[in-house]
Amino acid sequence: MIMFTLHPTLENDSIVLGDLPLSRVLLIKDSQYPWLVLVPRRESIREIYELSSADQQQFWHESAELGKALMHVFDGDKLNIGALGNMVPQLHIHHIVRYINDPAWPAPIWGKHPMYNYTENTLAEFKAKFAQCQLTDFTAA
Amino acid sequence: MIMFTLHPTLENDSIVLGDLPLSRVLLIKDSQYPWLVLVPRRESIREIYELSSADQQQFWHESAELGKALMHVFDGDKLNIGALGNMVPQLHIHHIVRYINDPAWPAPIWGKHPMYNYTENTLAEFKAKFAQCQLTDFTAA
Repeated sequence: MIMFTLHPTLENDSIVLGDLPLSRVLLIKDSQYPWLVLVPRRESIREIYELSSADQQQFWHESAELGKALMHVFDGDKLNIGALGNMVPQLHIHHIVRYINDPAWPAPIWGKHPMYNYTENTLAEFKAKFAQCQLTDFTAA
Repeated sequence: MIMFTLHPTLENDSIVLGDLPLSRVLLIKDSQYPWLVLVPRRESIREIYELSSADQQQFWHESAELGKALMHVFDGDKLNIGALGNMVPQLHIHHIVRYINDPAWPAPIWGKHPMYNYTENTLAEFKAKFAQCQLTDFTAA
């Protein structure tokens, strides 16, 4: 059995919120946007199309449920989804709740502004709201 | 019956290559990257999760086939997929073949460099290669 391990860059830039049936759910350490990342717990996959058909279906199911719940709970103006991976080779898909008054709007957020980490208080606040998403089969870290 | 119409910004920035069962396939007028956009032919949809479950499955099926074929035919280093829509409210999903020596690498391409349109020759070349993707149930424009 091969154990799943998170890429060190993702490990460093995020807080693990928990696991969905296929994906690890990460919160990026940038409190300027509700910015989550899904990482399918599969080894040596860089592209979504490299996942099996069943995994792709499960992945997009998790993505849609997460995106919809985040937009509702965090009252966003637009959801941004991105699978880039130019710098980190482990497949990971960004889900970012955007607001028309957020610091990068309407540009994409990547590389736009220095990251602004959560404090103990703002992280606790985020986690309390995230719990309201009530994702199906989610196991908190 | 409501007719599907492309948003004027997408219309202006792209060349219609044809239709998959659900999505219109656009080529963005920027020859610096093989940059395609899929637009599900549904009215008044901004987010992927607003599509019906059946449409979401069909959409990601088309996306995976397109992405895999583009990467193979255009011999890319990484596929970038993005659903942003901060500026254009009609749901559209970017599929960009990236190279480690392309002008924006490793940054995302959006807003990075002025667009560099195809000439008649480079467009004909692109279309000849795109035909090699042999997408299932694709109808050329």
